[in-house]
Amino acid sequence: MTDTIGVGLIGTGYMGKCHALAWTSAKPVFGSGPRPRLVHLAEANIDLARQRAEEFSFERATADWRDLITNPEVEVVSITTPNAFHAEMAVAALEAGKHVWCEKPMAVGFSEAQRMEAAARKSGKVAILGYNYIQNPLVRQIGDLIASGAIGTVNHVRVEMDEDFMADPEAQFYWKSEASSGYGALDDFAVHPLSLLRTLIGNPTRVFAHQSKPYPDRPTVDGTRRTVETFDIASVLFEIGSISGVLSVNRSAWGRKGRIALQIFGSNGSIVYDQERMNELQIYRATGPASAQGYQTIIAAPAHKPYDRFIPAPGHGLGFNDLKVIECHELLRTIAGEKGRVVDFTHGLEIERTVHAMARSHDQQGWVTIERPGT
Amino acid sequence: MTDTIGVGLIGTGYMGKCHALAWTSAKPVFGSGPRPRLVHLAEANIDLARQRAEEFSFERATADWRDLITNPEVEVVSITTPNAFHAEMAVAALEAGKHVWCEKPMAVGFSEAQRMEAAARKSGKVAILGYNYIQNPLVRQIGDLIASGAIGTVNHVRVEMDEDFMADPEAQFYWKSEASSGYGALDDFAVHPLSLLRTLIGNPTRVFAHQSKPYPDRPTVDGTRRTVETFDIASVLFEIGSISGVLSVNRSAWGRKGRIALQIFGSNGSIVYDQERMNELQIYRATGPASAQGYQTIIAAPAHKPYDRFIPAPGHGLGFNDLKVIECHELLRTIAGEKGRVVDFTHGLEIERTVHAMARSHDQQGWVTIERPGT
Amino acid sequence: MTDTIGVGLIGTGYMGKCHALAWTSAKPVFGSGPRPRLVHLAEANIDLARQRAEEFSFERATADWRDLITNPEVEVVSITTPNAFHAEMAVAALEAGKHVWCEKPMAVGFSEAQRMEAAARKSGKVAILGYNYIQNPLVRQIGDLIASGAIGTVNHVRVEMDEDFMADPEAQFYWKSEASSGYGALDDFAVHPLSLLRTLIGNPTRVFAHQSKPYPDRPTVDGTRRTVETFDIASVLFEIGSISGVLSVNRSAWGRKGRIALQIFGSNGSIVYDQERMNELQIYRATGPASAQGYQTIIAAPAHKPYDRFIPAPGHGLGFNDLKVIECHELLRTIAGEKGRVVDFTHGLEIERTVHAMARSHDQQGWVTIERPGT
Amino acid sequence: MTDTIGVGLIGTGYMGKCHALAWTSAKPVFGSGPRPRLVHLAEANIDLARQRAEEFSFERATADWRDLITNPEVEVVSITTPNAFHAEMAVAALEAGKHVWCEKPMAVGFSEAQRMEAAARKSGKVAILGYNYIQNPLVRQIGDLIASGAIGTVNHVRVEMDEDFMADPEAQFYWKSEASSGYGALDDFAVHPLSLLRTLIGNPTRVFAHQSKPYPDRPTVDGTRRTVETFDIASVLFEIGSISGVLSVNRSAWGRKGRIALQIFGSNGSIVYDQERMNELQIYRATGPASAQGYQTIIAAPAHKPYDRFIPAPGHGLGFNDLKVIECHELLRTIAGEKGRVVDFTHGLEIERTVHAMARSHDQQGWVTIERPGT
Repeated sequence: MTDTIGVGLIGTGYMGKCHALAWTSAKPVFGSGPRPRLVHLAEANIDLARQRAEEFSFERATADWRDLITNPEVEVVSITTPNAFHAEMAVAALEAGKHVWCEKPMAVGFSEAQRMEAAARKSGKVAILGYNYIQNPLVRQIGDLIASGAIGTVNHVRVEMDEDFMADPEAQFYWKSEASSGYGALDDFAVHPLSLLRTLIGNPTRVFAHQSKPYPDRPTVDGTRRTVETFDIASVLFEIGSISGVLSVNRSAWGRKGRIALQIFGSNGSIVYDQERMNELQIYRATGPASAQGYQTIIAAPAHKPYDRFIPAPGHGLGFNDLKVIECHELLRTIAGEKGRVVDFTHGLEIERTVHAMARSHDQQGWVTIERPGT
Repeated sequence: MTDTIGVGLIGTGYMGKCHALAWTSAKPVFGSGPRPRLVHLAEANIDLARQRAEEFSFERATADWRDLITNPEVEVVSITTPNAFHAEMAVAALEAGKHVWCEKPMAVGFSEAQRMEAAARKSGKVAILGYNYIQNPLVRQIGDLIASGAIGTVNHVRVEMDEDFMADPEAQFYWKSEASSGYGALDDFAVHPLSLLRTLIGNPTRVFAHQSKPYPDRPTVDGTRRTVETFDIASVLFEIGSISGVLSVNRSAWGRKGRIALQIFGSNGSIVYDQERMNELQIYRATGPASAQGYQTIIAAPAHKPYDRFIPAPGHGLGFNDLKVIECHELLRTIAGEKGRVVDFTHGLEIERTVHAMARSHDQQGWVTIERPGT
Repeated sequence: MTDTIGVGLIGTGYMGKCHALAWTSAKPVFGSGPRPRLVHLAEANIDLARQRAEEFSFERATADWRDLITNPEVEVVSITTPNAFHAEMAVAALEAGKHVWCEKPMAVGFSEAQRMEAAARKSGKVAILGYNYIQNPLVRQIGDLIASGAIGTVNHVRVEMDEDFMADPEAQFYWKSEASSGYGALDDFAVHPLSLLRTLIGNPTRVFAHQSKPYPDRPTVDGTRRTVETFDIASVLFEIGSISGVLSVNRSAWGRKGRIALQIFGSNGSIVYDQERMNELQIYRATGPASAQGYQTIIAAPAHKPYDRFIPAPGHGLGFNDLKVIECHELLRTIAGEKGRVVDFTHGLEIERTVHAMARSHDQQGWVTIERPGT
Repeated sequence: MTDTIGVGLIGTGYMGKCHALAWTSAKPVFGSGPRPRLVHLAEANIDLARQRAEEFSFERATADWRDLITNPEVEVVSITTPNAFHAEMAVAALEAGKHVWCEKPMAVGFSEAQRMEAAARKSGKVAILGYNYIQNPLVRQIGDLIASGAIGTVNHVRVEMDEDFMADPEAQFYWKSEASSGYGALDDFAVHPLSLLRTLIGNPTRVFAHQSKPYPDRPTVDGTRRTVETFDIASVLFEIGSISGVLSVNRSAWGRKGRIALQIFGSNGSIVYDQERMNELQIYRATGPASAQGYQTIIAAPAHKPYDRFIPAPGHGLGFNDLKVIECHELLRTIAGEKGRVVDFTHGLEIERTVHAMARSHDQQGWVTIERPGT
C-alpha cells in the first residue's frame, strides 16, 4: 500500500497550475516517496475553483482558503497567491500544523517575512519557497564544479535577469507600477539571482544599488498618463566576502524573455550559464596548452542528476515546468526527514534581507553592509 | 461529472514512462477533454509491472499484455515495447476495439507495417504513432511560416539527425548491431526527420541512399570481436517533387546528443532549426535593405500554441517530455472526432515505405522512385 | 640590402585587389622573406589599369597582359581574371619562366587544367591556386588535431558551402546561369570544400552527385524570362577510402553569406567549423566523465600559427583578407625552396578531377569511382 | 602624380606593427587620399629599429624619436610607445607641426592628458587617439540604427570588457600590477567601452565605481610574492543623462579573449554586440506579432560601409587589423579637412576625465558627478 500525503493548493494562476502539475508528476517521475493526494483547492472565485479542481483532479474546491487550512486531510499547502497574501496564509498554515510550499518573493515587507520565518521555526514544519531555478540539474552541476575546484577560487561574479514584459512604454499602467507592489525589479527579479548566488556561492555581505525608471509615466485606461512609482531596472554592485560582483535586473529589457545569465570567474577557470538555454552550461578550464583552451558547452544529460529521472538519453531537454517537479520532490524529501535541496524560510529571509538592503543603499547612495544575525 | 477514458500501457521503459507522464499531465495542462483513467499496465516481469503501476498510479498490473487488451475498461492502448512486438500488439488492440498509440518505428518489416495499417483502417479506431518532434510548438510555427509564404516557395531542404550512443567503438556489441534489428540509423533515426518532412513539406518521391559502418566490428562480452551487421550512418539524397534534399543520420556522431537539424530554403528566405535547442527557431526573410537582413532567432512563447498551456510567459522553455503531453492531447482530440495533429498509421506506413526504398536504393546503388498507392 | 621579388598582377577585381593587398602586407606581417616589388599590373581597360596601379602602388600599368608576361622584372604573376582566361595566361607565364599564383577554379574544362598542370611540371616553377580557406590558422589547427589523434580515426565527414548571391529568383539572368560558365555550384563552390577535404583528410575516391535548379528561369533585361542552364544547388555523397561523406553546396541559399561548414566525426571525438565564424572551432573529445563532455569552442589565438604574426593577443580576430596574406607568404616560402602550405597545380588538378567526376555521376545517376593516375 | 604624406612611426611593438600595416594598406584598400610615404621609424634599440624599418619598408631608422620629430619630411607621427611617453612625444610632435596618431590610453595622469589636449588645440594640427573599436562597420551600423530610432529611445546600457591575460594568479608580477602603471582595469580597459559609449550614446554624467583585486599578491622572479597594487577588476554604475548603465571590466577573466560586450536597451527594441564576434550584431525590434519577434543576427556585409572597401561579398569577415586601416583612413580624411570618424584629443580628454572620476568615486565610496567644462 502506497503512502500518501494530502495536498492543498491556494491559487490557480501561473504558479498554481505549475504546482498542480508538479504534485501530479513528482511520483511517476521519481518513483519514490509518498503519492501526493490532491485534497483541496482554493481559489477566490468558486466557479473557477471548481473548474480548476476538475482540471487538476483535486477532490474538493473552495473559495475560502481557510477551509483548506482547517481540512485535517491536508498535510502540505501550496501558496501561489499574489505576494500580499503570502504571510497571512503561510503563518495560518504553519500554525495549523501544515507544511508550506510558498511562491517567491516571500512577502511584501521585511517584517512580514520575519513573521513567516518565526512561524516556521516555531511550527517545526517544513516551509520552503519556490526558487525553482536552483533545481536545474545544470545549476546543481555548476555547484558541483565550483565545489570540486574546477575553476579554482571564485573571485568575481556577474548575474543578470532580464525580461521584457514591462518594456512597452505604451502598455497600460497596472499594479506593478504602483509603489504598494514593492520596489520593482529589485524584489520582482533580484530574488531569483540571489537564490542562485546563495546556493552556488553565498549571500552578499555588502551592496550598493541604483534603481532607475525607463519610463516616467504610462498610459491609463482613461487616456491620461500616470506616474510610474516603481523601478523597472536595478543595477547592483555587491560583495560576498572577498568576491566582487555585479547584479543587473531589468523587466523592461526588450528581447529578453527569460534571461538569467551567470558569469562566475575563478582563479582557474570560469562558468557561464543562461536560463534561456537552460539545458546548456559553459565551462572554461585554464589547463592544458593555450591552443586547446576554450569554453566547453555541456548539454544536460542523465549524468546530471536528476535529469535521468525525466529522460534516460542526453540532449533531449528539460523544460521550466520540470524544475518545479524537482522542487516538489525535494520538498517531499525534506518532509521525509532527508536533506532536500530547498530554500527554506530561514534562507528565504536572508534573500529578503539582501533585497531590502539594496533598496536602502539606493536611498542612501552608499554601500550598505548586511548583518545576518541568524547566521 | 468528468468524462474519462480508460488507458492501458504496455511497456514501462523510456517511452513507457514518457507515455505514463503524458497520460497524467494531459488533462491538467490542457484543461479540456476527458480525464485519462490509468486502468491497466503490462510489463513482462510481474514484479516490475507492479512497481511501475504503483509509481505511475495504474489500477492494475499484469505480465501478460493480452489481459490488458481484453480488459473492457481499457479504451486506448499505449504500445511502448521493442519494435518487434508493435505489429502483434497493435493489431490485437485494434481488433479488440481499442484506440492505439504506438511508438515509432512502426514495425520491423514493411509487411508488418502494412498489416498494422490495414487493421487500423478496418477497425475504425484511432491509431497513431509516437512521432513527438512534430508536436513542438516551434515546429508548428515553422509549418505556419512556410504555409504563409514567409520564405516563398521551398526549393531545398537539409535534415540531419545525430546522436552518439553508438559512437564508442569499444562499447560492447549488442542487438542494435544485429541485422535482425533493421538497417541501422536508417530506421532508427531517419523516420523522425521523415515525420518532420512529411508534416512540413511532404513525403519524398525519389531517394538515393548510402549507408556506412564507422566500425566494422565491436567487442563482445567474451573478449572477441563480432562483425557489425547494421549501418550506424546513412546519407540520403532525395526529392519531394521539385524540391531537392539531403538527409544525414548518424548514431555514432560523437558530441551530438539530440541533434535534429533542419535547414529549409525557399525563394524568399530560409528557416533553420535544431532540436538540441528546441525552444529556438531561426528565420531569414529576404526583405528590406540588405544592411538589415539576417537570421532572426525566435524563442518559444505563448504565441506559439500550445506553449501557452504549459507556461504563460515566453522564454521559459518546454522540455522533451512536454512534446509527449501535446501528442497525447492531440490523440485525445482525434479520438473525440476533431482533426488532431497526429501521424496516423496510414501516414506512418508512408514513412516506412520511404525508409525501405532508401535501403533498396543503397543495395541497387541508384535512385529509387517511390510510388505511393494509397495517396 | 633587402632581397626583392618582382610581382605582376593580371586582373583588378575582387581577387585582384585581394592579391594586391596580400603582396603589400606579406613582408610587414611576416618580417621574413623577400620584399615584393610591385612591378607591373594588367587590366583590360587602360584607364582602369592606370588607376589601379596608382592605388595599389604598381610601377607600371598595361591593358595587354602579355606585356607583363614578357617583362623580365616580373618574377611571379598573380592571375585573377575570369576563369576562362586562366589556362592561357598561366601557361604563358610558366613558359616565360614566371612563378604563378592563379585564382580558383583552375580552369573551365578539365583538359585545360591538365594543360596547366603539364606546363607547371615542365617549367620547374612554382604554380599554385588560390584556395585561401586552407590558410586559416584554425584550419591548420584542425589538421593538427586530426593528425595528433585528438578525435581518433575519422569515419564520417559533412561539408556545406552556401551563399545567397543567386538566391533571388527575380535577379536578372547573367553569365553564371549560362552553361558556358560551367556546371554551377559544383565548380563555383565545391572546389573550396574539396581543397579543405584534401588538406585535412584526402581526395574523394568515389562520388555520387545530384544537381538541382531552384529556379527554372530568370528575368532578362528585355522583360522576358530565360531558361537557367546551370545548377545553383548540388548535393554529393562521397567516400574517401572507408570514410563516408556528404557535400552540399548552394549558391541560392537565402541567409547564408559565407558559410563553409565542416563536421568531422572520428572514433574518439568530432570537430565542427564554420567559415562564417572563422575565428572559432569546436572540438568534442570523448574523454573523461560523461557529465563533463561537450563541444569546446576554441577562439583563434597566437598559439595557432601564424595568427601571432598578425596579432599577439588572442580573440581579436583575423579577417578574410588576412588568409590571402598567409597564402602569399606560403607561396614565397615555396618559391624559396621551403615546403609551403599550398595547393599546387598538381593538387589542383585532382580537385578538378573530382568536380568533373561529380558532374558525370549526376549525368549517369550512379556512383563514379575516381582514378588518380598521378598519385 | 600621386599626392603623398610623410609618416613617422615611434614604437614597433603590437600597436607599432598595427600602425605600420595600416599605413601600408590604407591607400590600396580605400583607393582615395594621399599615399602614405613611410619616412622615419624610431625604436629605442637601434638594431631593432633597423630591422623593423626593413620589414615595414620605412626609409630611415633611428633610436632617438626626436630625430623623427625634427625630420621635415615627416608630416604625421604614429605614437605607439608605452603610455608614460605619450604626453611628451605628442606634445613635441604637435609643437613641431606634425599631425599625431597616438595610441590609447591618452596618458598616465589627467594633467598630462590636459597638456596634450591644449597642445593639440594650439597647434591646429589633427591629433587623434587609437580607439579602433569604433571603426568596426557594424559599430557604425549600431550608431545608425540608434540614430534612426530603430530601438526607440535608449534607456539602459550594459558594457563589459574582459580578457584573461592577468587571470593566472601564478603568473609572475610585472609592471601592470604596480601602482605607477595606473589604476588597473579601469584605465587599461574602461577607456575602450567609454569610446564606444561616447560614439554611440554619449559621455557619462555620473559614475560610481568599485575596483577589486582577484589576487592580493603574485609571485616574483626571486621566489617571493609581491603585493598587487592595481585592480584587475572594476565594476561601475553610471548615468548618461537619464540613461542608466553598468560597465564591467576584468582583465583576469579566464576564458574571455577579446570580449567587449554591449547591450543597449531602448523603448522599442535592443541591440547586442560582442567584439569576440566582431562580424555580427544582434537587433531586436518590438514590432509585428509577438510570435515573430526575436533577435536578428546581422552579419557584416558590403552594405555596412566601409566593409565594401575590403571585400565586395558579405559574410567573409573583417579582422581586428582592418579596423586600424579604417582608423588610418579616417585620420587621413580628417587631415584633408573632411569630417572623419575619429576620437580627437578633445574627445579623448573627456574619456580620461571619466576614468579619473571613476577612480575617485571608488575612493569616496559614493557617486561622482562629472562636469565637462569644455563641452
